[in-house]
Amino acid sequence: MSFVLELPVRFAHVDAAGIVFYPRYFEMINAAVEEWFAARTGVSFGDLHLARRHGLPTVALESRFVAPSRLGDVLEIEVVLSKIGRTSCDVTYRISSEGDDRVIASAVLVHINLDTGQAMPWPDDLRDRLVRNDPIRLPMAA
Amino acid sequence: MSFVLELPVRFAHVDAAGIVFYPRYFEMINAAVEEWFAARTGVSFGDLHLARRHGLPTVALESRFVAPSRLGDVLEIEVVLSKIGRTSCDVTYRISSEGDDRVIASAVLVHINLDTGQAMPWPDDLRDRLVRNDPIRLPMAA
Amino acid sequence: MSFVLELPVRFAHVDAAGIVFYPRYFEMINAAVEEWFAARTGVSFGDLHLARRHGLPTVALESRFVAPSRLGDVLEIEVVLSKIGRTSCDVTYRISSEGDDRVIASAVLVHINLDTGQAMPWPDDLRDRLVRNDPIRLPMAA
Amino acid sequence: MSFVLELPVRFAHVDAAGIVFYPRYFEMINAAVEEWFAARTGVSFGDLHLARRHGLPTVALESRFVAPSRLGDVLEIEVVLSKIGRTSCDVTYRISSEGDDRVIASAVLVHINLDTGQAMPWPDDLRDRLVRNDPIRLPMAA
Repeated sequence: MSFVLELPVRFAHVDAAGIVFYPRYFEMINAAVEEWFAARTGVSFGDLHLARRHGLPTVALESRFVAPSRLGDVLEIEVVLSKIGRTSCDVTYRISSEGDDRVIASAVLVHINLDTGQAMPWPDDLRDRLVRNDPIRLPMAA
Repeated sequence: MSFVLELPVRFAHVDAAGIVFYPRYFEMINAAVEEWFAARTGVSFGDLHLARRHGLPTVALESRFVAPSRLGDVLEIEVVLSKIGRTSCDVTYRISSEGDDRVIASAVLVHINLDTGQAMPWPDDLRDRLVRNDPIRLPMAA
Repeated sequence: MSFVLELPVRFAHVDAAGIVFYPRYFEMINAAVEEWFAARTGVSFGDLHLARRHGLPTVALESRFVAPSRLGDVLEIEVVLSKIGRTSCDVTYRISSEGDDRVIASAVLVHINLDTGQAMPWPDDLRDRLVRNDPIRLPMAA
Repeated sequence: MSFVLELPVRFAHVDAAGIVFYPRYFEMINAAVEEWFAARTGVSFGDLHLARRHGLPTVALESRFVAPSRLGDVLEIEVVLSKIGRTSCDVTYRISSEGDDRVIASAVLVHINLDTGQAMPWPDDLRDRLVRNDPIRLPMAA
């Protein structure tokens, strides 16, 4: 079952044109990643960073802004794990409102040691829970 | 019954010291004001601004930052109407986490015409609903 | 001559890991686009939006976060026009500090009518000045 | 001589009403405090936090939003030390544009140990340089 965080478009998100200023979409996406990670693994972002001293920075990002969002729209931010490697994972994001796509994006997240900044292999418990709870969706075979 | 919006402290809110960067509290407070206003009056901030072309800017603000908030804390943001005038209102804010105060603030909001920027009297429907649904709390008599 | 905006990494930009939170890079990039556009065309973003009622939203974005940036780093944000079409343009961004790359990105910006949200051809004056003042850099022939 | 940081109002600062969203003023004020502190003491905010492990959080804040600021306005943010105690100081802020007041504010900043969160006396070097370089302005005698 896919993971979705629902967020309203607020005053803080829109610009002088009355539509969401695109860096705010990435704040929303980051909020969704925090919730998705905690829901999938049982480890909150607070614990990951402060207790475990691990991080999950975004190292690559692609996005298309398909249609504008306005003050008061309720956005659904979907996070899907699309691939998992030894120290990183690929995720796709879809922001929509009432079925209408707004942003389609994908990112590579790397699991790092916060003290050294170096990539580190996923701990088995986290990796297992990510894969088990967010079954990777393979593209349909031809 | 008091109005409370619950928000988690997210990565986007904290600074290098690991605690909420104070301008983010005001973004949270603004989110709470949007929800409070819509809940009390039935008019969303989107409709207020885009359809009615009215606004509700903050013209004065006082706040005390009582204790720091950390990544993962769940904050309760309470909004209480403390006074209502012809064109403005006074509100008080209390941000707390599990009963522990974090920020105590108060503000003056003015009802304006967005096109002229001038203060304008509350429409009766809005004023009535604000007062009826958020009974002004008077300080206890001695 | 390439266009560069210099910005210090501030408290507002960094997260609990002490490094720039990636949505803040896009706020910096947007600041650089505003300055670049005004420098190249002589039209400020304020005039573009408020007087002309035109906009320049980002419709696609790709970025790689090559290395982290820390509080106090001084960042150079370079904006280069790489292609210009009838209603849009491609730009590349490079954020670096003392020659050390931090973010490499590219985007497609579309010239729109703010009132209809529709793409519209570049006015000749803007297009001419963009091309003349930011000579498009072609990849070197083999 | 008073300390002033000049900042343009950018897209990222304004809201759907086309004017600066007030939490953004506090981000600007915080930027000015960083620059003021470094200019007065010779210690950057990066060094203060990361090397010395000290912080300077705002514990109380009062502000009046006197007039709106628009996209493209150039703001002057003045920071003045008005009082210094054993572990804290009072500062006043004035944001204006071409002599026209926009925000008048004052704050109490406390010098803390980042690891314990406790207030700590100013080191003599910092206190001396703050006082010497930002002579405290006393209200005129009657």
